[in-house]
Amino acid sequence: MARFFDTHRAMLEDAVQAARERGYWSAFSEIPSGKIYGETARPEADAAFEAMLDKPFDLDQPSSGARVGKEVSPFGRALGITYPKGEVDALVAAARDAARSWAAASIEDRVGVALEIVSRLNKQSFLMAHAVMHTSGQGYMMAFQAGGPHAQDRALEAIAYAYDEMTRIPASARWEKPQGKNPPLVLDKAYRIIPRGIGLVIGCATFPTWNSYPGLFASLVTGNAVIVKPHPRAILPLAITVRIGREVLREAGFDPNVLLLAADEPEAPITKELALHPAIDIIDFTGSPAFGRWLREHARGKAVYTEEAGVNSVVVDSTDNFKGLCQNLAFSLCLYSGQMCTAPQNIYVPAEGVATDEGRKSFDEVASGIAQAIDSLLSDPQRAQAVLGAVQSEDTLRRIEAARRLGRVVRDSGPLPHAEGRTATPLLVAVDAADEAAYLEERFGPIAFLIRTRDTAEGIERATRSAKEKGAITGALYSTDEAVIEKAAEAFAAAGVPLSVNLTGGIYVNQSAAFSDYHVTGANPAGTASFTDAAFVANRFRVATVRRPLAA
Amino acid sequence: MARFFDTHRAMLEDAVQAARERGYWSAFSEIPSGKIYGETARPEADAAFEAMLDKPFDLDQPSSGARVGKEVSPFGRALGITYPKGEVDALVAAARDAARSWAAASIEDRVGVALEIVSRLNKQSFLMAHAVMHTSGQGYMMAFQAGGPHAQDRALEAIAYAYDEMTRIPASARWEKPQGKNPPLVLDKAYRIIPRGIGLVIGCATFPTWNSYPGLFASLVTGNAVIVKPHPRAILPLAITVRIGREVLREAGFDPNVLLLAADEPEAPITKELALHPAIDIIDFTGSPAFGRWLREHARGKAVYTEEAGVNSVVVDSTDNFKGLCQNLAFSLCLYSGQMCTAPQNIYVPAEGVATDEGRKSFDEVASGIAQAIDSLLSDPQRAQAVLGAVQSEDTLRRIEAARRLGRVVRDSGPLPHAEGRTATPLLVAVDAADEAAYLEERFGPIAFLIRTRDTAEGIERATRSAKEKGAITGALYSTDEAVIEKAAEAFAAAGVPLSVNLTGGIYVNQSAAFSDYHVTGANPAGTASFTDAAFVANRFRVATVRRPLAA
Repeated sequence: MARFFDTHRAMLEDAVQAARERGYWSAFSEIPSGKIYGETARPEADAAFEAMLDKPFDLDQPSSGARVGKEVSPFGRALGITYPKGEVDALVAAARDAARSWAAASIEDRVGVALEIVSRLNKQSFLMAHAVMHTSGQGYMMAFQAGGPHAQDRALEAIAYAYDEMTRIPASARWEKPQGKNPPLVLDKAYRIIPRGIGLVIGCATFPTWNSYPGLFASLVTGNAVIVKPHPRAILPLAITVRIGREVLREAGFDPNVLLLAADEPEAPITKELALHPAIDIIDFTGSPAFGRWLREHARGKAVYTEEAGVNSVVVDSTDNFKGLCQNLAFSLCLYSGQMCTAPQNIYVPAEGVATDEGRKSFDEVASGIAQAIDSLLSDPQRAQAVLGAVQSEDTLRRIEAARRLGRVVRDSGPLPHAEGRTATPLLVAVDAADEAAYLEERFGPIAFLIRTRDTAEGIERATRSAKEKGAITGALYSTDEAVIEKAAEAFAAAGVPLSVNLTGGIYVNQSAAFSDYHVTGANPAGTASFTDAAFVANRFRVATVRRPLAA
Repeated sequence: MARFFDTHRAMLEDAVQAARERGYWSAFSEIPSGKIYGETARPEADAAFEAMLDKPFDLDQPSSGARVGKEVSPFGRALGITYPKGEVDALVAAARDAARSWAAASIEDRVGVALEIVSRLNKQSFLMAHAVMHTSGQGYMMAFQAGGPHAQDRALEAIAYAYDEMTRIPASARWEKPQGKNPPLVLDKAYRIIPRGIGLVIGCATFPTWNSYPGLFASLVTGNAVIVKPHPRAILPLAITVRIGREVLREAGFDPNVLLLAADEPEAPITKELALHPAIDIIDFTGSPAFGRWLREHARGKAVYTEEAGVNSVVVDSTDNFKGLCQNLAFSLCLYSGQMCTAPQNIYVPAEGVATDEGRKSFDEVASGIAQAIDSLLSDPQRAQAVLGAVQSEDTLRRIEAARRLGRVVRDSGPLPHAEGRTATPLLVAVDAADEAAYLEERFGPIAFLIRTRDTAEGIERATRSAKEKGAITGALYSTDEAVIEKAAEAFAAAGVPLSVNLTGGIYVNQSAAFSDYHVTGANPAGTASFTDAAFVANRFRVATVRRPLAA
């Protein structure tokens, strides 16, 4: 076991350092190249994925033998893969048994196991790309990056934070209290990390690994057993994860039931039963605000970390690069068909237009500038599908249909010609600031509103108020005026929204980089926690002390 | 403002270091000596306390002019002090207004203010001794120490942890992502600490300062405004605290409403209304499990830190110092008449007795050994009252009366002869392990059970099971057998109980030292949080990021 820790010690130390400095750092290459991952990695993964289809997924864990699995790729085909049916009491009992020796393991043993799991996941990044692509609908490149190395970086970040917090607690201390002329009072104290118990990780369908790994690995390394409950439409990525995790646990001499998969089907969900089980102590959830609210209200006495959703805003005040602004926003709106919790929805533009390097642009010119940039980005069908991916859920198409009636359509949504699966290009709808019913609701998918405001101040005020009331995970501002930027920075911070300013190049408001960006602040209704800070890890374990007078 | 930070910087750095090493360290002397505190400090404090009695307490904060205050010293006299009546909406509005500039202040400015408050509190330790003594019923010496320097150390510990966590987040970072042959992508990022909003601190009647300061100062330095809601029977210590805090805030140029007192009377409590107010984001509570449960169930979406209560156990297996064992436990049972959340209640002794340096002692001999040690400790009436103090609440006398009927009385409780106020010496009741209804309930006050078990293993099993089910804040073991000690250490840790082993000298199980002992683990029903660890502070603030491409 020490072997795993030693193998990855340098990476861990770099990760701890990176998390403190929060500059750019990444442990895992995002380039899907044979030079990096091995020339055979990709073809082997292609074959491995094909071999998984239409078969029972091989996962050795407690099960009655019943199987579930109704995943259908948003690109078309039913996966036909089945998994052991998640049986709540049996899974909890197995986790509880396994948790004992896991809790007693050293910090280094647990961290070593977790780092080895992440490293093996990295080697399977091409397989993960298929698994994520054909459950979430992400394009292949994005599925590789977000489902593979970027998710692994987030996992490593959570491990680094947890390791750092745990190791800041000394294993022992000598307490020696002076007593004037008398000999001092002396106690020897030993401190043990004690985990909370069992963590439940509830995955989502759009980023099954990226959003689940931080909670999964934070709970794991702090000594908790973990039950992973994937979204019923995106089981495969987490099934692969759990299988690799169990393999490493077993090799390290632990009961593999420290990590368990709880699969279900949309028609017979088990999430609530699991969440309310008294043996579950920690819950990490990514998904809808409705279920998030239910969890926060019902899972009392448990540590609950949620990543829900919100209404993300862009405020356009002025720019010295109008073309860059339009291209940048166009890409943000198109990327994965707006199915990112970080994608912008509401673009506030002053009624009188904005100052740009191309002269003053009216509200309508800003709208059509963005629309044209979208058309241009999607003009090449192959690139268009690579960027848009496919639409994960039928519901999104219904939301697009409804959104068309909410204002003046600036750019209509439609299926991508000659594309695979369910596709939809961005819908842009122009509304007035007063039409709050149209734009203040989260409308998940490729739906955006151009909102006509009196002025920039109203845009900032509305964007930040909506963040406080509805939640927001990202915000963006375009302005050439430092006073406006400072005012917006304060207002967005007060609303708990990370703000991106003047993005016109190759960085997009949707992107959140491990070790640098705190994803979700926890300071507005979009979620109760952030990836990844001390608050995300420190409450997953406790400290128990044994003290005794110094042995004579 | 920087002045305050600079003045106390060395103390802060020592505190941060001490919290990491967790050996003995204290910033404030526990010796009530004129040499340390100034020869005039005590007589001035005596006079200042006398001058406060039967008068309105001078506190300049928003108020309708209505006043409350029905404190009666457990040593006899009504204090006759009145305070501005806590009016929930007005207090919350004032806190909210004040919070804005407080949130925008630098970490150093806020920490400097907090350190100055603690330092000024230290200078008022003799006055605080009177205030704590005549509300809690603690003896003067204990009131000085626990209400003064020990509470101030706990405050400093919370400040140190919060400072450490906040300063680990860099103020800024340059994020520079290589792009192969192309120039790197570069973002400048700025990180701001954003507080949750308003913290509510709900004090208790027994340790009005010691138990309130960690939450108060942790919320304060992380940028939250704080409303202090004292127990209606112990307002004065926190009123003095708030007055000093407001004085420092004003001097530093902040709105003093960053810190407010919310006083009420037992007949018209305002705690629930305050706790449920939507503007309250953080709650720190010390008090009964019943109210703790209510808070945990109703104060949803708020960060809730509780220190409730539990059933603390001692397991006697064997000892090489029987006399020391008896004396040590006698003191623990007598100290402040068992009104400490850390006081032992249940003493498990094997039916066949225990091996000691004085030969085998039967169950009854252990019982009478402890009883005699209590009698001996209390034989001098003056010392007796100094140790016992007075009984804070009438309810405690009723609990003693009821407990007499629960088993065989080994040592009866009674008032201390020639004492001031309400007094009661420890009641010792012998029961069988099967009599769970007698001893598994928390019976707050000078009430202890000697529980006859089959053997030591049963004692450990019952003590740790009761901790898991009912909560426990401390545990103690006496054993000369390292295997028994190791087994107990594991079992108590798994039950979330700090364990003291073989205390026979001048350290008692009730004592919890700042910077070394984690008070309450948060890992059993006795409370949701610990004084003081990263989990206690890290969730009181968030981080908001502003990122923008590197200025050209």
